[in-house]
Amino acid sequence: MSYKLITKDGSAKRGEFTTPHGVIQTPVFMNVGTAAAIKGAVSTEDLQTIGTQVELSNTYHLHVRPGDEVVKKLGGLHKFMVWDKPILTDSGGFQVFSLAGLRKIKEEGVTFHSHVDGRLIFMGPEESMQIQSNLASTIAMAFDECAPAKADRSYIQPSVDRTTRWLERCKREMHRLNSLEDTINKQQMLFGINQGGVIDDIRIEHAKRIADMDLDGYAIGGLAVGETHAEMYRIIESVIPYLPENKPTYLMGVGTPANILEAVERGVDFFDCVYPSRNGRHGHVYTNHGKLNLFNAKYELDERPIEESCGCPACRKYSRAYIRHLLKAKEMLGMRFCVLHNLYFYNNMMSEIREAIEEHRYSEYKRQKLEGFQNQE
Amino acid sequence: MSYKLITKDGSAKRGEFTTPHGVIQTPVFMNVGTAAAIKGAVSTEDLQTIGTQVELSNTYHLHVRPGDEVVKKLGGLHKFMVWDKPILTDSGGFQVFSLAGLRKIKEEGVTFHSHVDGRLIFMGPEESMQIQSNLASTIAMAFDECAPAKADRSYIQPSVDRTTRWLERCKREMHRLNSLEDTINKQQMLFGINQGGVIDDIRIEHAKRIADMDLDGYAIGGLAVGETHAEMYRIIESVIPYLPENKPTYLMGVGTPANILEAVERGVDFFDCVYPSRNGRHGHVYTNHGKLNLFNAKYELDERPIEESCGCPACRKYSRAYIRHLLKAKEMLGMRFCVLHNLYFYNNMMSEIREAIEEHRYSEYKRQKLEGFQNQE
Ligand SMILES: [Zn+2]
Ligand SMILES: [Zn+2]
Repeated sequence: MSYKLITKDGSAKRGEFTTPHGVIQTPVFMNVGTAAAIKGAVSTEDLQTIGTQVELSNTYHLHVRPGDEVVKKLGGLHKFMVWDKPILTDSGGFQVFSLAGLRKIKEEGVTFHSHVDGRLIFMGPEESMQIQSNLASTIAMAFDECAPAKADRSYIQPSVDRTTRWLERCKREMHRLNSLEDTINKQQMLFGINQGGVIDDIRIEHAKRIADMDLDGYAIGGLAVGETHAEMYRIIESVIPYLPENKPTYLMGVGTPANILEAVERGVDFFDCVYPSRNGRHGHVYTNHGKLNLFNAKYELDERPIEESCGCPACRKYSRAYIRHLLKAKEMLGMRFCVLHNLYFYNNMMSEIREAIEEHRYSEYKRQKLEGFQNQE
Repeated sequence: MSYKLITKDGSAKRGEFTTPHGVIQTPVFMNVGTAAAIKGAVSTEDLQTIGTQVELSNTYHLHVRPGDEVVKKLGGLHKFMVWDKPILTDSGGFQVFSLAGLRKIKEEGVTFHSHVDGRLIFMGPEESMQIQSNLASTIAMAFDECAPAKADRSYIQPSVDRTTRWLERCKREMHRLNSLEDTINKQQMLFGINQGGVIDDIRIEHAKRIADMDLDGYAIGGLAVGETHAEMYRIIESVIPYLPENKPTYLMGVGTPANILEAVERGVDFFDCVYPSRNGRHGHVYTNHGKLNLFNAKYELDERPIEESCGCPACRKYSRAYIRHLLKAKEMLGMRFCVLHNLYFYNNMMSEIREAIEEHRYSEYKRQKLEGFQNQE
């Protein structure tokens, strides 16, 4: 179980991450299946078809429904979803701090109301690890506080300190869980999460502290939550030099194709984002010539696929005109096609990115790709 | 282009119907794709996988959206949906008489309000044929009046007489359309529709009259609209002897697996019904041991597929527990799985039916099948 840095092109890393569920080629985009399913009627069998390497599911959602104990009884997430490649679960922290109702943060953890039935739930580092161990994901994320985007130093510093203490507790608890007889995945891996808002020195100090903890990987959390793109890129640049180069780096919840191209250049390995599926469900599809809104009347008689060169299940057979009709008629099939296309587009871009880094022409690749996005039809 | 009666087992017919888009083995269940898509995120590529022989689309819906002129410009329904096997289009009549708002019936046709935008539309036999010619389906249905289930003789007799006159106009108009230069499918076929409510003598007289018109096939319409099953079976038995044996017989909008088994025994070749997709979207799935409601709590930890022996894309990989979770979490994927399973179940039952007739053991097959449906788990 290890990360192998194959090559670098500038700061861009081309890596290979070996997990109990197979090897992940990085940079990689993880396809989000919040409640153990990709929204838009996409199955794990479809994920195989569109080149997905890692599926990401949400701990909070699965804890609430169907319940992590149920998933454990059914043999863990891999068996439940029928997916034998890597799965990453988030810690639940992000949802606790964004979705859940009225909450109370203490040193032990957070008490909050379920967004489904309003019942009171407590989650701290140990609970998050226990839930993720029940889910038996490949990679578990540490339980952290994702502070509000505009929080100031007096809020951020104690929050980050607590997140560090929580990380130590996560590590201890995972160690304990991985050694239990009835744990499904006894080789579950743990990624720590760097926090600190957009305050560089807090971010850097925190990165140094968690880098010493010898975790399986390191995420940059608390970005893409309201700050500018320039602030986000600056923080990535500040933090990456203090995270171990021989470990994967994960930028959480990011982002647009352009965001990913920029972050890869700064040394990020792992990405995840709901954009491709959410946009797909609204008929917004990515192409190498920018995003199209298939609801637009100009596609009424357009017999071309969404993108000529695309090998996704939608583009291989169906026209923009047909998919537009499906979307307008509120047929689920229209959403399914757009989501399949968008995820394929992201997965395929990551594959191009890996090739460009290997061939040490990443900055030229990035320039051309970004230029293409501007040349909207 | 013809119907070949391969064999009979009692009154049950095993036929082969040659069309411009390939041969249909009967008895057959047509899979309903109302607006040029099967509800539940099922594509024509999926239809190939689940053994669909004929797709059925609705003239009224496609006339309203995207418009039959649009479909014609895009090369017809086959090209639009990407489906090269037979497509049957209904005449629009059933929707005009059930969905549309306030309507006025005259000898020329019907004026009614669109259920989408309320605009006034006129449809008569010629308009219905023109729309279906634009859609370029394999088989067009004649424009008829589907009278209310409880209508009496004084309403039914003049309505049926008008439907006969409309059928003559349909035949003339299709002949004209099929000979036009820019018609997409110049070999479009026409099925006439027998009407007459549950009044046997009107049904029989009408059957005799339309049988003389040498159409490509004959449907029994106006059933499954509120009468009892016993009445429906009685009418089928009354009418079938007066319809040509060397032509396909189509029982419109029917029905449950049991209804189909009974109707096949009485000589019906073609079926269509929204039950498998509508029930699937509500988590109700067909099995050889009756219908299951996957929302039921007893499936929470059920690791079995919907049906052990089923070869559908859902049963090949996924458990009842997983599909139940998807349905409860309102994930479209749950509906997709259930619809795929149900359509596969129907298509597969038709294949069993054909084999049983060929082997002259249909009544024994039917008995066992119906018995199985009673033995709910
Ligand atoms: Zn595509
Ligand atoms: Zn099945």
